Amino acid sequence: MRILEVREQTVSIASEMANAVISFRHMTVSLVAVVSDVVRNGERLVGFGFNSNGRYAQGGLLKERFIPRLLAADPVDLEGPQGFPVDPVRARRVLMAGEKPGGHGDRAVAVGILDMALWDLVAKVADVPAAQAISRRFGLADPAPDVAVYAAGGYYRPGGDVRELTEEIRRYLDAGYEQVKIKVGGASLDEDRRRIDAVVDVVGDPGRLAVDANGRWSLAEAVAAAEALAPLGLRWLEEPCDPLDFAGHAAVAEVFPQPVATGENLLSVPDVRNLLRHGGLRPGRDVLQMDPALAYGVAEYQGMLALAAGRGWPPSAFVPHGGHQLNLAVAAAFGLGGCESYPGIFQPFGGFADETPVEGGRARLSDAAGLGLERKAGLRPLLERLCEA
Amino acid sequence: MRILEVREQTVSIASEMANAVISFRHMTVSLVAVVSDVVRNGERLVGFGFNSNGRYAQGGLLKERFIPRLLAADPVDLEGPQGFPVDPVRARRVLMAGEKPGGHGDRAVAVGILDMALWDLVAKVADVPAAQAISRRFGLADPAPDVAVYAAGGYYRPGGDVRELTEEIRRYLDAGYEQVKIKVGGASLDEDRRRIDAVVDVVGDPGRLAVDANGRWSLAEAVAAAEALAPLGLRWLEEPCDPLDFAGHAAVAEVFPQPVATGENLLSVPDVRNLLRHGGLRPGRDVLQMDPALAYGVAEYQGMLALAAGRGWPPSAFVPHGGHQLNLAVAAAFGLGGCESYPGIFQPFGGFADETPVEGGRARLSDAAGLGLERKAGLRPLLERLCEA
Repeated sequence: MRILEVREQTVSIASEMANAVISFRHMTVSLVAVVSDVVRNGERLVGFGFNSNGRYAQGGLLKERFIPRLLAADPVDLEGPQGFPVDPVRARRVLMAGEKPGGHGDRAVAVGILDMALWDLVAKVADVPAAQAISRRFGLADPAPDVAVYAAGGYYRPGGDVRELTEEIRRYLDAGYEQVKIKVGGASLDEDRRRIDAVVDVVGDPGRLAVDANGRWSLAEAVAAAEALAPLGLRWLEEPCDPLDFAGHAAVAEVFPQPVATGENLLSVPDVRNLLRHGGLRPGRDVLQMDPALAYGVAEYQGMLALAAGRGWPPSAFVPHGGHQLNLAVAAAFGLGGCESYPGIFQPFGGFADETPVEGGRARLSDAAGLGLERKAGLRPLLERLCEA
Repeated sequence: MRILEVREQTVSIASEMANAVISFRHMTVSLVAVVSDVVRNGERLVGFGFNSNGRYAQGGLLKERFIPRLLAADPVDLEGPQGFPVDPVRARRVLMAGEKPGGHGDRAVAVGILDMALWDLVAKVADVPAAQAISRRFGLADPAPDVAVYAAGGYYRPGGDVRELTEEIRRYLDAGYEQVKIKVGGASLDEDRRRIDAVVDVVGDPGRLAVDANGRWSLAEAVAAAEALAPLGLRWLEEPCDPLDFAGHAAVAEVFPQPVATGENLLSVPDVRNLLRHGGLRPGRDVLQMDPALAYGVAEYQGMLALAAGRGWPPSAFVPHGGHQLNLAVAAAFGLGGCESYPGIFQPFGGFADETPVEGGRARLSDAAGLGLERKAGLRPLLERLCEA
């Protein structure tokens, strides 16, 4: 197998939603197609990838550095074990040649996009679902047939009120979700308390509601908020302070008896190592949310899992940010604690394949070869246009 | 004053040089021109900026996110105190609107490039050297007239031998430098020892030679290398292990009596805070090398200085990576311990304005308004072409 071409298209996912630190008014995603020379049923096999929401499209970095490196690679350097003619694990090394250590930011997103497309491609070539391809490549047991998911919503919207919020949450319950998440930190603590209380009324149990401050609070504010929220018995408190403020996380963990969740803005193994070393988080309680599609892809993610395992963290502590087919497959392959889901938002990238059944809070994996992105009706026209372009 | 236009040009600085982790075979730099509506001597005032070597051009991110945000800004949001109609400190906030916390990588470089151009522009508008504009903006004393500099070279070159290395070092001494730096970690420790011994012979004193491993070594290798190098009495040991391995730096500091230097790959205040919290480095001994032109610019750098001051670190501990007119001006304005210099390499971006006298290891600042980039003959054609384009 040879990679003939890589195409990128920047797509707007702009909306009037906001979390406590950013609005999504100009948010974009890169959609990538990796075109192979493998022909099946008269068509070239193509792998598709994109980045999770929140850190923008990466067309510039992809075209300047990462796509040229992939296309210029000696095929021998891309060959993997177990009959992978193009191995995403080895491709990662090719993509990172010439990159200095430290400074894991936008380039981690760009590499994650290509990694997703390569997993889609190699799974299609092997004619297996992506979860199967991942579990084979890393010598894991068969992937789980379904994965615990939670509906992440409850963003701040212009003119949005508590009734709108509770209607949104009700839609998630009607769709089969049992756990939900809403934003906090973008309003006063009193106002957020009203939002929380209203949602707890709908879900029936505070242990079914997580809250996410997106790193908004200072250390002092985070500790004060954690103390105020502690008596509620929520599912978790997410990103109470700057994601790199590890001592801050340790302080919050001291005063918050329920899980602290963080990691979606830690984009590399070295950053995660610092969280585990210095963040005061406890295996068996806290939740790690690193996202392969923002952080150099699945091989880097496997490195995070291995590092954490050495420090006593089970895979069940991992619940990746991102809410799409790749992270669902990763969660099934590695036996993670769950996966975020965005039913109805960040369209057409948010959420799983259309026919994905969610029952009792668990999503059943698609049996499509590859990631199954073609089974998302809203996405299909974009995939087709990118192939025709 | 209004910003009319921002232009970017990606320029190759490819060379056959390598450090212990990357080659510069495909290295690029972004050169940016910020065109104002201020006309002086019949010409529009233009601010120029570029990034330091090592982390590539940022044309994509600049054009996708940062230039559009600058051009779309309400002029009121760019206005600063003390008669700055466009204030680089406030511009930084405009540029970072919509950016999530954490993940400080390529975008820190992109913002640093625009920041450099804005300082060049506002200093030209005020008709003062950039160092003067910076010291005024931050309420500092007058800038120092000259700055301690060291010649950073000694890269690995194909077929390069020890004689070539010592000739290079001799050129630096002839040019007025007293302190030099060479790369280590890209060869065996024995081979590196031969290179070090040969250079010490030329400079006459091991305290005039720093060595830089560019983060190549594992923790165990770094500690072993530090122990082996400790008896030599070198000026400093730079980036012995991954720049984010703060516990690793602490271990090296335990066994290395001379200064440990690091920071060029820490691209934000939160990353630097972690180094100071967890890196085991000692104020009064170790050296901090963060680089405004890779790390969100001068305002972020001032935040790093303030943070460090609160933990007992004097400005004299700061010796920025980068080797160009901005960092020379920053060092003069903030009274830093020195500034890196690249005489003859990374051309035409490396090194200071052509007429900069270096005597007794100190570089005298240019009296040109702005950064004085126009006084670098190799750079001038690029600046002119960007303005004509």
